[in-house]
Amino acid sequence: MLRGGVAMVDPSAARPGESWREVLDRRALVPRGFRFFRRSLTFIPAERPGSPPSSMTISCLHNQGPEFSAAAVTTTNRFPGAPVILARERLSRGRLQAILVNTKVANVAAPGGLEAARQVAAAGARLFSLPPEEVLSVSTGVIGWSLPLEEMLREIPALPQGSCGVGGFAEAIMTTDRYPKAGWVSLGEGGHGVADTGADPGADIRTGGSAGTQGDPCGEGTGEGRGGAASRVATASRGRTASGNGTAPVILGVAKGAGMVEPHLATMLAFFVTDASVPPETLGRVLRRVTEKSFNHLSVDSDQSTSDMVVALANGASGRSVDEAELEAAWQPLADRLALEIVRNGEGTSHVIEVVLRGVPCATLARDVGRHVVNSPLVKTAIFGNDPNVGRILMALGDGLSRYDHRGVIDPSGLVMTIAGREVYREGAFLLDQETEDLLCASLRAAAMDPLLAGVPQDRGTVPIVLDFPGNDREDVRVIGSDLTDEYLRVNADYRT
Amino acid sequence: MLRGGVAMVDPSAARPGESWREVLDRRALVPRGFRFFRRSLTFIPAERPGSPPSSMTISCLHNQGPEFSAAAVTTTNRFPGAPVILARERLSRGRLQAILVNTKVANVAAPGGLEAARQVAAAGARLFSLPPEEVLSVSTGVIGWSLPLEEMLREIPALPQGSCGVGGFAEAIMTTDRYPKAGWVSLGEGGHGVADTGADPGADIRTGGSAGTQGDPCGEGTGEGRGGAASRVATASRGRTASGNGTAPVILGVAKGAGMVEPHLATMLAFFVTDASVPPETLGRVLRRVTEKSFNHLSVDSDQSTSDMVVALANGASGRSVDEAELEAAWQPLADRLALEIVRNGEGTSHVIEVVLRGVPCATLARDVGRHVVNSPLVKTAIFGNDPNVGRILMALGDGLSRYDHRGVIDPSGLVMTIAGREVYREGAFLLDQETEDLLCASLRAAAMDPLLAGVPQDRGTVPIVLDFPGNDREDVRVIGSDLTDEYLRVNADYRT
Repeated sequence: MLRGGVAMVDPSAARPGESWREVLDRRALVPRGFRFFRRSLTFIPAERPGSPPSSMTISCLHNQGPEFSAAAVTTTNRFPGAPVILARERLSRGRLQAILVNTKVANVAAPGGLEAARQVAAAGARLFSLPPEEVLSVSTGVIGWSLPLEEMLREIPALPQGSCGVGGFAEAIMTTDRYPKAGWVSLGEGGHGVADTGADPGADIRTGGSAGTQGDPCGEGTGEGRGGAASRVATASRGRTASGNGTAPVILGVAKGAGMVEPHLATMLAFFVTDASVPPETLGRVLRRVTEKSFNHLSVDSDQSTSDMVVALANGASGRSVDEAELEAAWQPLADRLALEIVRNGEGTSHVIEVVLRGVPCATLARDVGRHVVNSPLVKTAIFGNDPNVGRILMALGDGLSRYDHRGVIDPSGLVMTIAGREVYREGAFLLDQETEDLLCASLRAAAMDPLLAGVPQDRGTVPIVLDFPGNDREDVRVIGSDLTDEYLRVNADYRT
Repeated sequence: MLRGGVAMVDPSAARPGESWREVLDRRALVPRGFRFFRRSLTFIPAERPGSPPSSMTISCLHNQGPEFSAAAVTTTNRFPGAPVILARERLSRGRLQAILVNTKVANVAAPGGLEAARQVAAAGARLFSLPPEEVLSVSTGVIGWSLPLEEMLREIPALPQGSCGVGGFAEAIMTTDRYPKAGWVSLGEGGHGVADTGADPGADIRTGGSAGTQGDPCGEGTGEGRGGAASRVATASRGRTASGNGTAPVILGVAKGAGMVEPHLATMLAFFVTDASVPPETLGRVLRRVTEKSFNHLSVDSDQSTSDMVVALANGASGRSVDEAELEAAWQPLADRLALEIVRNGEGTSHVIEVVLRGVPCATLARDVGRHVVNSPLVKTAIFGNDPNVGRILMALGDGLSRYDHRGVIDPSGLVMTIAGREVYREGAFLLDQETEDLLCASLRAAAMDPLLAGVPQDRGTVPIVLDFPGNDREDVRVIGSDLTDEYLRVNADYRT
């Protein structure tokens, strides 16, 4: 369960004076053959010559092979950014060797944007002597602004001097994220899944959020991995790297952003890399299914950016291949975890809202209605205020049904609503009294994070809302959302003042 | 144009020491044969025995006939309140003689709610010796709470002692509205329409917001009407009443609320009454068309309440009948104006956003996409911050198209975006420079209202955004929205503290 996942997060994983980036660098299990680099620069936006210099981070993810399988899913926004257009073009061949990521300028609807993206990718290709069409340029930032091409082309050749670890890369692609987000899962013995779901005791997954309270990420040579492996593979990556032939393959995921939650930065990005041997077709199929169930089920502010992108790379460096089912079973909980992390560190988020739809015959309908509930400004503000205003949840559900359940497959009269384990609605009426009110208030307060606290994950669980339509035996559909806080407003409206 | 409508609003219509309610009472043109009453009471919610007393206003709209045509449109929320269920039942006969309205408790999903609504209506029927099935009970307030039936049945018989005018009724049905809203239009010579649209110089419409700066609402006996008519028809209504046979019929509209914009109150209500003779079938057809183009094109916070209702009554007291086309032509601008007023006084609203979609082949698609743009939290917060973050508008439009334009009837590449008269996007790219930035900033500041100023309408125009897809010669579709402010958050989240 996602709540269990959240419950595992423990900021105390950081040693005294150690940043969350350093925790990730130290604990992350990095698939063989992937390297990370980062540099930064400053520039004056051409559209605002009068403004002070803006700072940009350029980072790079380099796949050393031996294989170069690649797949991506991109935003469905009808005004996709140049990087999205480039990705659709280059991923069609299923091969990618390097990805460059820049912050501050999203390169969306900017004059000459696509050509600029090609030039950035070409500079990255020259860096590692790669075919340009196997390098991707990804951007996150202001929509409508042009890339500071001159400054970027000047800085890219210096990327090798900025070799860094997973934590450094996860931090480099951040915009207003409150902490770097990375997770990993081993495909080794002990199988796959999430240890804290209770579904598979032998399971083996770690995320940055959970690393601190976990045992060793995989059941082998960790002590050696900490130091030896780290030094031995220093050029590949800081942190531990699965090493030696026959070692279990690993899937590593890095994510940033939470939809359009920042005044001018606009991207949700996630990168998955594995040293398992996976053909691009398989990688793409699994990526699409895993993404649908994870990232497509979250919303921070209901705004789909022009730049959302999830990219997966597989290089076979482990010498092991995995079958499609095994890959998906290991990958899904990792993607779920990263999706949750994205909401948990959403701009100004103080509560994570977890809506579970039960007994809805159609998964897409359940997702749309669930998203409608977590996106309701009145549900979001009530939860922000620790106010168990259950009537608003009913309102949002009824509104969502009227918008999406055109064929009337859901019978509203069957609804049973449970919040924080307390049944509050059944047989067409609420069950409200002072005790229920007090219990719900207390559970909301317990789930409240401090939106101003940045740097490390906060564990306050979620606000669990179950909307059950008994009679249909279907798989639960879970949608994760964020509340609406004054900090969200401050960042998104008052930033000029 | 709606902007013109807003531009007419002038708080100076109030005389020294005169409230906006009194301005409406003095200036409103009231159709013959309609009376208004109001009383108030206090009660302790059964669901919160520990809480301090809540106050409730009960008001009544009484149609004295001779005809009793009635029609209504109600929310499509799948969890409609008891009053909505009752309205659908009773309006099916097309006859209504009185409407009771209470605040504070919405009577939605409350145990025994429908029976309670019937008892309230019955009490109103006894008051005027009417058939119970021709009386409606309408509620606005907390979802899930039960009506304080005992207190209400005790107070209703005293309603006749609370005779009031249009302003008093418009104020009585308010929840957190910032000022009472009423408008009227005469079907007399000079035709119909909105004087400030420029469409019809001879047109003749007034709204509460505009009364102050208008000449006489209709071209006849106003001086006499002020005093004489008022006194002569004191039992019918304070304010002026069209009098005598052959006088032009009048349509009066009263509205409250702005969707679900208050912590616990949840209704957008509008009532239209006319002394024209209109068969219920005609009244219903025109009401549905007028509502679709007005109230169905506004959004404050994207949350459709469980209790939204628009009711129209016609009594033929003018001795005049109007044909369907004439009725619609006069009614539409009045409904448009009231819809705008609802947004302008939305909870915490500081900017009214006016999105015009041009060249969209399907009106419903244009409405859905337009609503998606005005409902984007990032568009709303940017406008609140007087930040011309045009990229967010493109994002929201592209996101809306991906959600609603399933058949791809709109070609995004054709988009021309104009804000405050300035073209900012064409041929797939933004046209941004410092001058444009400064011009847009200035126009946003000029359109900013003070969300804390209540009591009277504020005129700051709108933020006009034109999304033009050239090539299709279609009627413009206009969607009105509100920005997202800290005052909205304060009222909807912090009210407990």
